[in-house]
Amino acid sequence: MQAAILSIGDELTLGQNVDTNSAWLAGQLLARSVVTIEHRTVGDDRAAIAEAVASLAGRCDLLLMTGGLGPTADDLTRQALGDVFTPGEELVSDEEAVESIRRWFAGRRTKMPPSNLSQATRPRTMRLLANGHGTAPGLAGEHEGCAIHALPGPPREMKGMFQEHVLPQLPPPEEGRCMLTETVHAFGIGESRAEQLLGDLTARDRRPTVGMTAGEAIITARIRLMGEPREARPRLEETAVRIEQTWAPYCFGRGDVTLPQAVGGLLRSVRQSVVTAESCTGGWLGKMIVDVPGSSEYYRGGWVTYANDMKASCLDVPVDLIERCGAVSAPVAEAMAQGAIRHSRADWSLAITGVAGPDSGGPGKPAGTVFIALASRRQDEIHVRLRRFAFRGDRAMVRDRSAMAALQMLRFALRGVGDDQPLLWESAGPEPEQVDGL
Amino acid sequence: MQAAILSIGDELTLGQNVDTNSAWLAGQLLARSVVTIEHRTVGDDRAAIAEAVASLAGRCDLLLMTGGLGPTADDLTRQALGDVFTPGEELVSDEEAVESIRRWFAGRRTKMPPSNLSQATRPRTMRLLANGHGTAPGLAGEHEGCAIHALPGPPREMKGMFQEHVLPQLPPPEEGRCMLTETVHAFGIGESRAEQLLGDLTARDRRPTVGMTAGEAIITARIRLMGEPREARPRLEETAVRIEQTWAPYCFGRGDVTLPQAVGGLLRSVRQSVVTAESCTGGWLGKMIVDVPGSSEYYRGGWVTYANDMKASCLDVPVDLIERCGAVSAPVAEAMAQGAIRHSRADWSLAITGVAGPDSGGPGKPAGTVFIALASRRQDEIHVRLRRFAFRGDRAMVRDRSAMAALQMLRFALRGVGDDQPLLWESAGPEPEQVDGL
Repeated sequence: MQAAILSIGDELTLGQNVDTNSAWLAGQLLARSVVTIEHRTVGDDRAAIAEAVASLAGRCDLLLMTGGLGPTADDLTRQALGDVFTPGEELVSDEEAVESIRRWFAGRRTKMPPSNLSQATRPRTMRLLANGHGTAPGLAGEHEGCAIHALPGPPREMKGMFQEHVLPQLPPPEEGRCMLTETVHAFGIGESRAEQLLGDLTARDRRPTVGMTAGEAIITARIRLMGEPREARPRLEETAVRIEQTWAPYCFGRGDVTLPQAVGGLLRSVRQSVVTAESCTGGWLGKMIVDVPGSSEYYRGGWVTYANDMKASCLDVPVDLIERCGAVSAPVAEAMAQGAIRHSRADWSLAITGVAGPDSGGPGKPAGTVFIALASRRQDEIHVRLRRFAFRGDRAMVRDRSAMAALQMLRFALRGVGDDQPLLWESAGPEPEQVDGL
Repeated sequence: MQAAILSIGDELTLGQNVDTNSAWLAGQLLARSVVTIEHRTVGDDRAAIAEAVASLAGRCDLLLMTGGLGPTADDLTRQALGDVFTPGEELVSDEEAVESIRRWFAGRRTKMPPSNLSQATRPRTMRLLANGHGTAPGLAGEHEGCAIHALPGPPREMKGMFQEHVLPQLPPPEEGRCMLTETVHAFGIGESRAEQLLGDLTARDRRPTVGMTAGEAIITARIRLMGEPREARPRLEETAVRIEQTWAPYCFGRGDVTLPQAVGGLLRSVRQSVVTAESCTGGWLGKMIVDVPGSSEYYRGGWVTYANDMKASCLDVPVDLIERCGAVSAPVAEAMAQGAIRHSRADWSLAITGVAGPDSGGPGKPAGTVFIALASRRQDEIHVRLRRFAFRGDRAMVRDRSAMAALQMLRFALRGVGDDQPLLWESAGPEPEQVDGL
């Protein structure tokens, strides 16, 4: 079964909004073995919408549309579908939908703008889909053997209506052949090195097929295999394990697993906890850790010591150390990590200080220079490991990679990976090394 | 001048990656008065790519393609362009490009995989575009009056090559008619209320046209006007000012301005500073503030007191207060804000404690219950304002809106907006009120 997705809206074609609906829908379809062969986006233009519908319906079994169902004059999906389904006819008004829209507004004690009644119209040969999440009903019908569903554009409404109206119409996951997928993620290794390590796994004619993508410094191997689940699943698994082995120790998880989740799972399994001390990341590392539900089991909290006097007052970093070495320096990162672990009951502390940019931090400290310290309690002694990085990219990229690198350092320590295992962007000295571009 | 954008990759059609390139390109084109009429995405399928190129080239003046230029066997953009530009012919190898790719690898002291040489091939009638950001050269040519540029998929390479190769080819911003745009943003007001306030500004036949979108709880009015800049600019400005007035005091800025930037600008103008004390947001508020370059002028830092003992040890929140009222309560939020301002030299402190979910925080405290306190120093006294919220949505949405609401509270205080000015999702009591869905 093949599908296409059509998004509608000037704000999308003109680039004012990024279309996230299409990727979400395609992912949902793929999980049901429905392969999406094309996404298309057109503006609020009745003729363009009608032409896209007719053209896409001719080449697939399922067409999902989003957007253009609102009450305003630039919402033209209903009219365009009328041009395809019932050319020359007026749209008909659906009494049940009129009542439902009236009830929606009454339930919110809001006066209904008269324009909302246009949302109750439909081409005669299509049916309306109830919307329990907003005012715009969807539309469904069949055209030249293609099942067409038009859903509202706001992601929350679109997702709810997909689950209620489209999912039940899809064929059940096939007993026979279906598309199985798996992803494997790594952090701290360069893109070309990761690809080299994969070797012949990425050969075009290999089954399962393996592709590699890089995004936000995460390297991901995407494994796909079409086949009967009982036979295909073990082959998929075998390939995933091979990739995990070839990318170890950088590989942190599969599928939806994030690096903060992976680290959280390790901390939970050994019943240990961590605190954070952040300067240039400004709380991003803590935010990442708390993104994971249940993180209160292993995250105690932390300090955002952005100003130097906060480093001194909260974490006992000696003022003369800051003056002598600079706030962005190995000794200050180490002192932050020491202060954080001493002021808490945690087993581990992570400290980050660096130059996020856009401005340089002075001679020998260009934007991207970041020191990360990891402290651990061993009986009564505190042991500190330190790495220096020369990250590339803008302010957000430097800070994101700093927080991720800190988590990978903790993960390495929890997994017993040696301190000499290099991490991408690591830098020995004041001059950042030439490193692999990501 | 009309443009279309074609993205290539199975990872896009199958929904494993969201295509952000197309929106970025369309935005860049719009800034040069080039209107994008369609985005299309097809998979790694030579025939599908060739068909899309031929079809889109037939209906626009400029076609930008991204993706499928890599060295691996599933990168088929070059071959597909050959099918359109020089059907029946083999691709030709470009000696200059071979040298350039060799140099790229030599500069990185990395051995070049032989497959990379395929990146130096092109259809005979197209030219290669040098890529200073990676190994894959782009391609450019003209087909049936349409200028076609094929750029690599990784956003950093794509953006660099767009600026170097495509931008200089675009017509200069017209002396005469061009498309002028402006956006106005608000936070803390419901979508339907915001639309009602706009009134006849959103009428379809009005010039400039005004559309409204909502994303991540930010309400945005998008203003567009085609015309001669000298005549159109004041009309655009007049509409923007009307929207700012109708949405005051929720309206925080225009264009690229974020709420953290707006608050930062206000703090800088009065030379005041802020510290943060976060529980459920886990550092997100600090991260948002530090997202803004130059935030060290007004942000001193903060505490992530995720565990209760951290609230007590770092911010002097009385342990018996936490036991009596619960960590998620008005008194604890107030005590956190007081502790934060007392332990710093800042003029303001913001404290957040809440139930991010997915689990409830107990009776009367469902997920989404959040208390935000804003403390200020007045001579030697500390004054605290408090709001209670009942946010909707998942863990990430509750935490994002909490941080944004905290910033809007500080913005209101800095702008002298009364404490009785309601904020969306505010809740009077233990039972969350029925609030406008966003």
